[in-house]
Amino acid sequence: MTYCLGIKLDAGLVFASDSRTNAGVDNVGRFEKMRVFARDGERVVVTLSAGNLSVTQNALGLLEYQSKRDPGRPSFWNASSMYEVATMLGVAMREVQRRDGDYMRQNSIDASASFILGGQIQGEEQRLFMLYSEGNYIESSSGTSYFQIGEIKYGKPIIDRVLVPGTTLADAVKCALISFDSTMRSNISVGPPIDVLVYEADSLRVKLQSRLEEGDPYLTEIRREWSEGLKGLYVRMPAPPWLVEPPK
Amino acid sequence: MTYCLGIKLDAGLVFASDSRTNAGVDNVGRFEKMRVFARDGERVVVTLSAGNLSVTQNALGLLEYQSKRDPGRPSFWNASSMYEVATMLGVAMREVQRRDGDYMRQNSIDASASFILGGQIQGEEQRLFMLYSEGNYIESSSGTSYFQIGEIKYGKPIIDRVLVPGTTLADAVKCALISFDSTMRSNISVGPPIDVLVYEADSLRVKLQSRLEEGDPYLTEIRREWSEGLKGLYVRMPAPPWLVEPPK
Repeated sequence: MTYCLGIKLDAGLVFASDSRTNAGVDNVGRFEKMRVFARDGERVVVTLSAGNLSVTQNALGLLEYQSKRDPGRPSFWNASSMYEVATMLGVAMREVQRRDGDYMRQNSIDASASFILGGQIQGEEQRLFMLYSEGNYIESSSGTSYFQIGEIKYGKPIIDRVLVPGTTLADAVKCALISFDSTMRSNISVGPPIDVLVYEADSLRVKLQSRLEEGDPYLTEIRREWSEGLKGLYVRMPAPPWLVEPPK
Repeated sequence: MTYCLGIKLDAGLVFASDSRTNAGVDNVGRFEKMRVFARDGERVVVTLSAGNLSVTQNALGLLEYQSKRDPGRPSFWNASSMYEVATMLGVAMREVQRRDGDYMRQNSIDASASFILGGQIQGEEQRLFMLYSEGNYIESSSGTSYFQIGEIKYGKPIIDRVLVPGTTLADAVKCALISFDSTMRSNISVGPPIDVLVYEADSLRVKLQSRLEEGDPYLTEIRREWSEGLKGLYVRMPAPPWLVEPPK
């Protein structure tokens, strides 16, 4: 399983993804789900992927292969708009689904896959997209300031509670890691290391890219303090007044 | 959608269910998902249901019909063991699936359904079961002190964090309502009123059965305090030390 999160704020973009993949719990591996295409002053394009790893890897691999054979084709490195990148990635996903999908479905293998795609290309504003298995996609508007793919539900409530367009990049990283903590506690197939990338709007360069390994001091601190804080908060909540219990 | 929760503690059982059902967001109705079969001093048996309403209603309806026609049959009112009740309910679910399932699947209607079943019958300990669509079931052991059915993921993290077998009944109600709050915030098709039933182990009578309507003072208080408490906790979490931002 996978959990990936892309957040769009007034201040910039925050991406986070876990690095675990599994084909059954007896076959758990580590694969990076974050890919970065950055040329300082010109573009920062980030993809996060979830679902069938062979589909997402091959969609990216196909684009790389096509662009090497025909440098005139639109690619992550020469596209002039994030819209062009999203369309191109959707087409590649369809191509892979067409090539491999039926063979997987014959053996009841789930061929579904999805991408979060975000970044900024010179001449445009920063943008954030989510691509579905079928190659279609949506873009975040002011009303939707984040996208999740993979194991999305456990980590959603905290984001819904605290994230607003004016949230700072540091606060969004904090929120993202708390969201990952809730997910990792409830789904054992999501786990560290967690890749984090922070992009400041209009900077056209990666502000920070970090891999938080198991035992990373900040990750450990936030997981412990959040857990203890939640338990403390729960204890302080009022008891139901209609359910009187003898004093302990 | 539905969210139902059954908790087994050393002190007793806590059940909670929402009352919303929908066949598309333009067709939202209220149906009780909690059924209680109680005779003081002899038995308290509770069912919570999720999934296709026609399947769960008909499984219960079939048992009622059969028991009226043939009072000698095992029923909620005369079964001598919760095991017998679980088996009987599983058989009824299979019967309804056999009768209606193919017709629904022909129109791509999801016929899946599930039950939480719990309670105590004189001569036995209190017990808690979960029944699947296929009529098979599992029983909680000391390791698993709760079952959820329906929209389970949003409300699971808080339960995993705080619930232990020694939790008091009042604290478990508090935990259940916080779990419902997280679910209701993220899934609009889960909503009040919330039915709550509390059973004290070995009492063989319902301790408390309450319907918390929208606007119920305690529900409102706990939802507001939890939301504010979480935001405060989030603000107090340390910022990532590797992401320095200019002071605001």
